[in-house]
Amino acid sequence: MRIKNAAGRIIETETTGGKYKPFNGAKKYNSNPKLTNLSDALIKCGLRDGLTISFHHQLRNGDNVINMVLKTIQDLKIKNIRLAQTAMFNVHEPVINFISEGIVNRIEGSINGIVGNYISKNPLPYPVVLRSHGGRWAAIKSDELHIDIAIIAASTSDVKGNCTGIIGKTAFGPIVYSQIDALKADRVIIVTDNIVEYPCSFQEITEGFVDFVVKVDCIGFPENIVSGTTKITSDPLKQGIAYRCIELMDAAGIIKNGMTFQSGAGGISLAVTKYLGEILEKKKLTADFAIGGITKYLTDIYEKGRINKLYFGQCFDSHCVSFLSKNPGIPILNVGHYADPTSKGRSIDNLDVVVLGATEVDIDFNVNVNTHSDGRMLHGIGGHQDTAAGARFTIVTVPLYRKKNPIVREKVTTITTPGDVVDAIVTNEGIAINPNRRDIIKKIKRKIDIRTIEELKDMAYNSAGIPEKLNFGEKIVGIIKWIDGTVLDNIKIIEN
Amino acid sequence: MRIKNAAGRIIETETTGGKYKPFNGAKKYNSNPKLTNLSDALIKCGLRDGLTISFHHQLRNGDNVINMVLKTIQDLKIKNIRLAQTAMFNVHEPVINFISEGIVNRIEGSINGIVGNYISKNPLPYPVVLRSHGGRWAAIKSDELHIDIAIIAASTSDVKGNCTGIIGKTAFGPIVYSQIDALKADRVIIVTDNIVEYPCSFQEITEGFVDFVVKVDCIGFPENIVSGTTKITSDPLKQGIAYRCIELMDAAGIIKNGMTFQSGAGGISLAVTKYLGEILEKKKLTADFAIGGITKYLTDIYEKGRINKLYFGQCFDSHCVSFLSKNPGIPILNVGHYADPTSKGRSIDNLDVVVLGATEVDIDFNVNVNTHSDGRMLHGIGGHQDTAAGARFTIVTVPLYRKKNPIVREKVTTITTPGDVVDAIVTNEGIAINPNRRDIIKKIKRKIDIRTIEELKDMAYNSAGIPEKLNFGEKIVGIIKWIDGTVLDNIKIIEN
Repeated sequence: MRIKNAAGRIIETETTGGKYKPFNGAKKYNSNPKLTNLSDALIKCGLRDGLTISFHHQLRNGDNVINMVLKTIQDLKIKNIRLAQTAMFNVHEPVINFISEGIVNRIEGSINGIVGNYISKNPLPYPVVLRSHGGRWAAIKSDELHIDIAIIAASTSDVKGNCTGIIGKTAFGPIVYSQIDALKADRVIIVTDNIVEYPCSFQEITEGFVDFVVKVDCIGFPENIVSGTTKITSDPLKQGIAYRCIELMDAAGIIKNGMTFQSGAGGISLAVTKYLGEILEKKKLTADFAIGGITKYLTDIYEKGRINKLYFGQCFDSHCVSFLSKNPGIPILNVGHYADPTSKGRSIDNLDVVVLGATEVDIDFNVNVNTHSDGRMLHGIGGHQDTAAGARFTIVTVPLYRKKNPIVREKVTTITTPGDVVDAIVTNEGIAINPNRRDIIKKIKRKIDIRTIEELKDMAYNSAGIPEKLNFGEKIVGIIKWIDGTVLDNIKIIEN
Repeated sequence: MRIKNAAGRIIETETTGGKYKPFNGAKKYNSNPKLTNLSDALIKCGLRDGLTISFHHQLRNGDNVINMVLKTIQDLKIKNIRLAQTAMFNVHEPVINFISEGIVNRIEGSINGIVGNYISKNPLPYPVVLRSHGGRWAAIKSDELHIDIAIIAASTSDVKGNCTGIIGKTAFGPIVYSQIDALKADRVIIVTDNIVEYPCSFQEITEGFVDFVVKVDCIGFPENIVSGTTKITSDPLKQGIAYRCIELMDAAGIIKNGMTFQSGAGGISLAVTKYLGEILEKKKLTADFAIGGITKYLTDIYEKGRINKLYFGQCFDSHCVSFLSKNPGIPILNVGHYADPTSKGRSIDNLDVVVLGATEVDIDFNVNVNTHSDGRMLHGIGGHQDTAAGARFTIVTVPLYRKKNPIVREKVTTITTPGDVVDAIVTNEGIAINPNRRDIIKKIKRKIDIRTIEELKDMAYNSAGIPEKLNFGEKIVGIIKWIDGTVLDNIKIIEN
């Protein structure tokens, strides 16, 4: 059909291959200001009972944003909010009050420490859903977890919402968790304590995804966001475990030119990183790259030329944040790139080796990082599942027992990572290799001693006793999902 | 229901608030190698008759990739491909043969020069669909234009597909058009002539979006990709137009501290940039930011401290590409951030002023950039529509006439940008302001002389004669879309 459009032109509304709407007039864009206060932003984003609100945890135990937002929601007399934070720490103790007042009634996200302890004893009406970093990304991407309002803390932003965590007085490292929230949430609010001239330098989140920018006095407390320097373990037992890890990696032929690795920011992991740097230096070898949480121990090895490339995800000390802001071209690794199991390629699939921790391991090589042996849900999954499944060699480090609690045991209290993807357990009193990994067993034969996992369990039981059976009730406190969205385990309430 | 899952745990498949699938086993990720040749990559991506294949144009007139891919498709005996390139240049003359052999039968994307000339006379079975930069992004995002296979040229990539245009011997500046192709296409192939160690420094496209990486000898010819130095106009008439632009901007109160602007890489636009830098220097003023295609003229002003921030989109000379690779934190502006009309905020909505060119303008302030006055479709829309609608003040520069062809005229041959969003026409013989912009007319009153657009048209007709009426046929060669997807104009075949 021929029709005269608003520009006065006769156009066809249908041609081979297409149907078309006629031009209906043009006008200048008239963008509304985005800068406002938190209450106004939440109201304009349609805050109401029952919505899902997301946060990232990169301000860690210095975070001021979750508590501040929940207080504002309380003032607005809204209830039954589902939180979809990436993690929560002791600083979030006020969340307990928001739960008991009915402001929060549902949580999908990691809970560390005080709040986890509370919920373990006072379950929410809905079970807490725990996912790995990559699992959460995929759940949001696939709409399994729909976010109504994403709240994204930024240490610096411009008034349009281009923002970063790399610069500013509360800098915490690149924002790497929230890109998927920004992409999929109905509404997005940036919360910052530092507004700069447009356009912001460094932009992990860009204005096209942002509805409102909220300026507050303080998004967090720098001393609890990143450490000045991350502390390595000084415990000889843990140093021994770290050293044994290096021996195992060496025996397995992993320590060589071009190796790729991830090691975390816990005490043992930092020691592994440090010792690995020393052995690379001693043998004049160069690793291809390291990823994961970045610390000064890694940037030091990099600056000595013993790692070719660093991938920046989370930053765990202030040195690393500043390192990133001064070196052009260092790739920033968002969590999708790191670990999205539904993507066409994840950086962790390129790892020769990852070194992980645990609260418990069992004779099937299952690993628990979520609950303590008393059944309390005190930790999130983090990247544990993701990297274990991604790396070609997954090492879990644990002490054989802690006081009267055997850590290597018959059955873990909760399965976080299934034994199918765990290759070695390294303890202070010996190493066990997953019998499925005959390739590794063959490589290390006659180089280092290994024990069976049952032997380690027996040694643990001999020293610390047999674990007491927990008295579980029926109520489900939490659900542990595997990276593909299926359920690995239920955490049940402990009855005293 | 309680069920025992593959980890041996009894889990509930239904709780308050959710239904769950039981864990079904875990295994190590086993990623397949992505590095292969073009033919193999296309076959594995399911190449077949009728598919839509996309490209970016950032290798400009030095591009080797479109021709190479079409040759491979020809060798594979596949036909009826729909091309969805961002633009095409004279280097793509071989496309004419691929069209006449039926390998390409449909095009949605800009066509500059030789191929446009050919199609103007030999229309495709389907009309060519022309969209602005932002309009194309939105059309792909909304699935109006579905891409089966995206081919993304990169000057450097790693074997997993993390890639960039910023470094390497064929560097062309950051890849800024293809993020939406990578996100939405079914399959993605990176074509590069420089493979580096994983992970690539700078990563405009990341591995999670990439199916295959193809290494070829040469993606393009550097001398035709970016100029050593972009050439400013030496034509006194064009210099005069540029100077008049600056006078108009000054009279309108735009040249002040904190101003924001975009000016392109054409001869007049470069002169505007240069003169603007000079006046900023003379008046000791500092602009907030400049965006758009970046040239040395802009980085020079930036380095003198007369622009606070640069936003890097396309790079038009080698100086700028290298500038970006050496300065950390300079934000890279992808086309979605620049101009996606469906986003929550575009950088171009922050512009005080944009200076644009035209092939023709008319007394309704409509602008043509697509066809010449003889009716041939020789240019794409680029960011013309986007920036005209985004900037608070849109200036179009044109000579009053070219030889015997009046450029200011009664009706443009084709409407690219409707007069509703065009504020001033600056010619070598006078300036006309859109009567809708009474605010601007008031500001510049008694500062500079203005004419009505009809006066300019009359002057053009007096000097160059009245334009000949073109003899249009019925066949539609091309469709001009407005940024919202509606049809602004049809380009019809010219009958001789």
